[in-house]
Amino acid sequence: MRKIRMGMVGGGEGAFIGAVHRIAARMDGEIELCCGAFSRSAERSIASGKTFYLNEERCYATYQAMFEQEALRNESDRMDMVVIVTPNHLHFPVAKMALEYGFHVLSDKPATLTLAEALELQTLVESTGQLYGLTYTYTGYPMVKEAQQRVALRELGEIRKVVVEYPQGWLANTDGDDGKQAAWRLDPAQAGISCCMGDIGVHASNLAEYVTGLDVTDICADIAGSVDSRAMDDDGTVMMRFNNGARGVLLASQVCIGEENSLKLRVYGDKASLEWSQMEPNSLWMKFSNKPSQLIRCGVGPMSSLAEANTRTPAGHPEGYLEAFANIYKNFAGQIQARLQGQPASEVALDVPGIREAVRGMAFIENVVAASHSKLKWHRFTLEPIQP
Amino acid sequence: MRKIRMGMVGGGEGAFIGAVHRIAARMDGEIELCCGAFSRSAERSIASGKTFYLNEERCYATYQAMFEQEALRNESDRMDMVVIVTPNHLHFPVAKMALEYGFHVLSDKPATLTLAEALELQTLVESTGQLYGLTYTYTGYPMVKEAQQRVALRELGEIRKVVVEYPQGWLANTDGDDGKQAAWRLDPAQAGISCCMGDIGVHASNLAEYVTGLDVTDICADIAGSVDSRAMDDDGTVMMRFNNGARGVLLASQVCIGEENSLKLRVYGDKASLEWSQMEPNSLWMKFSNKPSQLIRCGVGPMSSLAEANTRTPAGHPEGYLEAFANIYKNFAGQIQARLQGQPASEVALDVPGIREAVRGMAFIENVVAASHSKLKWHRFTLEPIQP
Amino acid sequence: MRKIRMGMVGGGEGAFIGAVHRIAARMDGEIELCCGAFSRSAERSIASGKTFYLNEERCYATYQAMFEQEALRNESDRMDMVVIVTPNHLHFPVAKMALEYGFHVLSDKPATLTLAEALELQTLVESTGQLYGLTYTYTGYPMVKEAQQRVALRELGEIRKVVVEYPQGWLANTDGDDGKQAAWRLDPAQAGISCCMGDIGVHASNLAEYVTGLDVTDICADIAGSVDSRAMDDDGTVMMRFNNGARGVLLASQVCIGEENSLKLRVYGDKASLEWSQMEPNSLWMKFSNKPSQLIRCGVGPMSSLAEANTRTPAGHPEGYLEAFANIYKNFAGQIQARLQGQPASEVALDVPGIREAVRGMAFIENVVAASHSKLKWHRFTLEPIQP
Amino acid sequence: MRKIRMGMVGGGEGAFIGAVHRIAARMDGEIELCCGAFSRSAERSIASGKTFYLNEERCYATYQAMFEQEALRNESDRMDMVVIVTPNHLHFPVAKMALEYGFHVLSDKPATLTLAEALELQTLVESTGQLYGLTYTYTGYPMVKEAQQRVALRELGEIRKVVVEYPQGWLANTDGDDGKQAAWRLDPAQAGISCCMGDIGVHASNLAEYVTGLDVTDICADIAGSVDSRAMDDDGTVMMRFNNGARGVLLASQVCIGEENSLKLRVYGDKASLEWSQMEPNSLWMKFSNKPSQLIRCGVGPMSSLAEANTRTPAGHPEGYLEAFANIYKNFAGQIQARLQGQPASEVALDVPGIREAVRGMAFIENVVAASHSKLKWHRFTLEPIQP
Repeated sequence: MRKIRMGMVGGGEGAFIGAVHRIAARMDGEIELCCGAFSRSAERSIASGKTFYLNEERCYATYQAMFEQEALRNESDRMDMVVIVTPNHLHFPVAKMALEYGFHVLSDKPATLTLAEALELQTLVESTGQLYGLTYTYTGYPMVKEAQQRVALRELGEIRKVVVEYPQGWLANTDGDDGKQAAWRLDPAQAGISCCMGDIGVHASNLAEYVTGLDVTDICADIAGSVDSRAMDDDGTVMMRFNNGARGVLLASQVCIGEENSLKLRVYGDKASLEWSQMEPNSLWMKFSNKPSQLIRCGVGPMSSLAEANTRTPAGHPEGYLEAFANIYKNFAGQIQARLQGQPASEVALDVPGIREAVRGMAFIENVVAASHSKLKWHRFTLEPIQP
Repeated sequence: MRKIRMGMVGGGEGAFIGAVHRIAARMDGEIELCCGAFSRSAERSIASGKTFYLNEERCYATYQAMFEQEALRNESDRMDMVVIVTPNHLHFPVAKMALEYGFHVLSDKPATLTLAEALELQTLVESTGQLYGLTYTYTGYPMVKEAQQRVALRELGEIRKVVVEYPQGWLANTDGDDGKQAAWRLDPAQAGISCCMGDIGVHASNLAEYVTGLDVTDICADIAGSVDSRAMDDDGTVMMRFNNGARGVLLASQVCIGEENSLKLRVYGDKASLEWSQMEPNSLWMKFSNKPSQLIRCGVGPMSSLAEANTRTPAGHPEGYLEAFANIYKNFAGQIQARLQGQPASEVALDVPGIREAVRGMAFIENVVAASHSKLKWHRFTLEPIQP
Repeated sequence: MRKIRMGMVGGGEGAFIGAVHRIAARMDGEIELCCGAFSRSAERSIASGKTFYLNEERCYATYQAMFEQEALRNESDRMDMVVIVTPNHLHFPVAKMALEYGFHVLSDKPATLTLAEALELQTLVESTGQLYGLTYTYTGYPMVKEAQQRVALRELGEIRKVVVEYPQGWLANTDGDDGKQAAWRLDPAQAGISCCMGDIGVHASNLAEYVTGLDVTDICADIAGSVDSRAMDDDGTVMMRFNNGARGVLLASQVCIGEENSLKLRVYGDKASLEWSQMEPNSLWMKFSNKPSQLIRCGVGPMSSLAEANTRTPAGHPEGYLEAFANIYKNFAGQIQARLQGQPASEVALDVPGIREAVRGMAFIENVVAASHSKLKWHRFTLEPIQP
Repeated sequence: MRKIRMGMVGGGEGAFIGAVHRIAARMDGEIELCCGAFSRSAERSIASGKTFYLNEERCYATYQAMFEQEALRNESDRMDMVVIVTPNHLHFPVAKMALEYGFHVLSDKPATLTLAEALELQTLVESTGQLYGLTYTYTGYPMVKEAQQRVALRELGEIRKVVVEYPQGWLANTDGDDGKQAAWRLDPAQAGISCCMGDIGVHASNLAEYVTGLDVTDICADIAGSVDSRAMDDDGTVMMRFNNGARGVLLASQVCIGEENSLKLRVYGDKASLEWSQMEPNSLWMKFSNKPSQLIRCGVGPMSSLAEANTRTPAGHPEGYLEAFANIYKNFAGQIQARLQGQPASEVALDVPGIREAVRGMAFIENVVAASHSKLKWHRFTLEPIQP
């Protein structure tokens, strides 16, 4: 056994999400950062790499150079996987080249710029046989996994209704403090056709599908920009139908002043219900007809083995966002490790969002935008590319 | 000054909402129950009246008899107002006759069985000059009034988004414990064309319009019944547009297992936001961009004079549903008292849902049902009767 | 059956607690206010009485006059019971005269000015056979009664530890807005030897003993005044031993800035635990070893019959402080009604704090003050008068 | 700049706290584990080390061997610091030898087995000039640091009252699941003279002193064991006086069934108050007289620079226990780094519990045990060893 060696594209100094990825990768000591193309500037790439204690020779000026040169290195220190933490428009070309060069890929979301790209990526993943993972962070929380397991065990009975909401407030004003974070997300060339749905709506839809095990089949959507000068959506509502007939509602917004990152899921079945909030992630409510609600707490009493495998601390020692993120890294590394050992990956390791979720996420974005433009109420959710 | 004398139609022993109305009427000592037609059975009407310490002669067998005979009584003990606590289909005929006989009317919601009736009632209220109030209980909470005042003072800036939800779970199963409460609500002949929207959706829509001071102008709706044998809706979502361009979402459900009576309102403006939950009614959250949220608590620090006038206890001594209900009674009685004294009613007294809200509530029900049937996404909210 | 007729001593216009008592008495329609000595000024007593729609002849200038003249009235309209809502120093003389004149007594707390008076009162209650109740309001909450029942049924096993806290902040500054409320509570001649323990500490100790069914046997106390000019205590901590060996802690304070009325009880047994907070009174937490906590909610699922009998609304329609207060009135009225009917009172009616709690409350105050003065750690809780 | 190299004593595979320390050390990429004496068995030490990807030659059989051999290594890869994660009785001998061999020490708490040892350690720290840190984890939370800064800036005015509580339930039963964790904590030879106060009471007292900047001067204590077969305390209450005259209460318990790790601090000043709970660590309440409470949230609006420097994620992305722990590592590593660079350490780096807190913590334990045995109420808090 050895550590998995990771390269990074994007995420140079000052990029919030790059730092988060590095912490997540480091947390369990199973992955080491071995190289990177951290910035479009060679100098800045090297400067960043030095702060991560990398050798200068492995701080590349471009991702192309990185793949080419890493591929030439000896197997004993060559990169195993690349993580992609660039703006959206680069996700696909970087992932494509990585797969073609034989590297496993862990990508930030959304998977690509368009659904067409995601479908092409799917073909590539299948043809190359390389591993592909997607950092839908919120499915990394142990209590989300616990929820998923309880639904799978039919503790809720048949699902009737799903309410998932994701209000944020950070784009409520034109000139926020977070100028850099906002800039590329509001530029269709870098972000794709949707800001709010592409940035956070996909998280909400992924969370709903992950926990319920259901697929969205039909939607009715209403998205819009709330701030005058803005071309892209910053707020939206989606009514949904799932493949078992359940009804759903998804709310996502970046202009709800005072909301931080309030992703919340409620699932109502015909036997019981559950509720989970990202802001208090170690709690999961189970609700029943005419008997007391139960507060399931991470680490208290028997949890599903899946939730337990994704927990590091005992009850009452709160784990948070970085640990959820680290679970995705740890499990994805587990897949690579299994392959290195020539063994099948465990169920725990396999529980990472992958190419199926990549495609469905991009489909969600394109279907919502199309449905929002439609005068008809219901729009059939399709995996065919919609964007011209 | 004397107490206001009230007659009651419906609400005999065992009827939950009748007991609630009587408590609300009694709470502030300004109203006395003087007579009633509590049941369709004369015997049971008398039996009920006795438990309220009424004279047998003023326990009537029918509401018609009550209005006829009370009208003949001496002014010194004649009924001033009638409260209507029957199933929905009787609201209109009772209110109509009461107005025609010169009595003021306080009615449970929804105001009538159809929008057409509501419009006829509006004409009658205007022509008779009698007072008309509607018990949209939730607008009686002091913190709801505080919210309304803060919006009116533009503390939130321009309203951009309204999210109002009202999940309950009591109709999740076919055979609940609450058989009697459910039976008439699921019978269109008694309840009207909607169960969920007629019973609780109207509360949610009234709350949103009351607090924001805005009117719904367009809707997109999806309502349905979740339990097989059921003809009527028990769950629904409504996307909305308001007359200032704001977007809204209304969720109402009676099949969300484990939810009690979780009416909750969030209003997002371009300067600040607010949030209120009926289950913790003495709290009101104010949220801001990049500074700490404030927890406004009933009785702590200066409140608006409107909220203060609707508060009975100091901070930390929780008031609840019955006090909110009593506020509607107290303020409606204040209108009658003002008329008895030949004086204009105070702003506090006038802050009671009236015939305008009665009409808009019935319009809400009919528009939502029509919109839900439509294949088009958006439906123009109209005050014209829709139901055939 | 007829309504119970109540006279009031104290509580004229503007007195907060008088208004609360009247609302509580009115709420269930079983009690009518028939007379009162509302103020030490005859004129103001009459003025107050008029606002309650009383005849001038039954608005008395003194409580002595009230008892004398009411005793002479015909049985058909004579007062049945008196409620005492004066400052503390009058509780005893008024109660004493009432009992001697044959009236039942409901008294605000603490029962008397001294333990010696409480013991004398106990003798009088026993010798006259009149009914005596004490408005320890917080034991009127249905979820407190549910807690008491669950402890009694040994659901918690043997009680090991009790933590009861009652922080308020309203006396944190010398010159508060609540000048009148503060003035007499800080005057030993009117309030007795303790401000904080007499005003709120007794509530906390009563709540702990009521729910656990245990008696305090030993205490260690530390009370003090936090504001310079103040002679009386405004803050204190009491460590306790109960008669089963359990340990306890009681915190009470009037100088905890920002705290409203945060009475909170936690009871830990060797099988399970419970927690209740007055600020969210319709919830009761049950906690277990290594399995999920349960949120017991008023009206959800089967409650004890005692809790149910003290509940007026269905789940999710919050009841509050006034309803808890009204429960004490309703149950005390039930005792009187049973006596009028010549029948034994029900268990529900008997569940009102009485003369035993009156004596223990006054003992609590005197024991805490004595213990606080002692250099020894532990002080044996005694029912012998301590104050010189 | 290079990474700080860390050795570990104790914390082999399966030891909960060892894993936590390693995660904390890894999180920010500034520290690498270079060696360890993970177990008293040489074989198990090597086996553990291999799972951390260490060379076998740096997996030592004893801490003595580790210090001796690491001291001989070339400066380019020699250990800089040792972290001690053994049971309590080894803290002192390991720390002593490490300091004598010239290594910096980061120790788990409590610092030693006795106060006498702690004082000896203090002398050694001063004489060797090596760095010493103590993992009072909870002071690593950004909102705790925010609280400390606000108190220091006098936002609360003069502190009047401190309430700190730390209830857990995991030792409520004799035979828990956590047998190994419990065993040494209940053995005085390994744990010292107190279980509850030594394990969690010291955290609570450190938190109170850290946030308020005050020192405890007098105490009154009541500690006891709740489970029959148990020699050591598992529950206790301490009344306190601080050096500004403020009063305090500390509750700690390991037998409060259903409590997880509910460390909670409330500080009441004469101008404002604050409240923080470890179970929801990203929130800090500020409370005021007669105006709304404010919910300070990590990452929302301007925080103190100290809190900000200890934060990794934006608002609404919860950080937890491991991040708080990592802050202690990061800041302690910052002290070492500064020394390596020949520069003064920053204020942020210096904000780590050190030898002063080590001594006060051991004094707290011995003073509480002595005070609990005393028949007198108040016990003067002393830094002189008490234990025979």
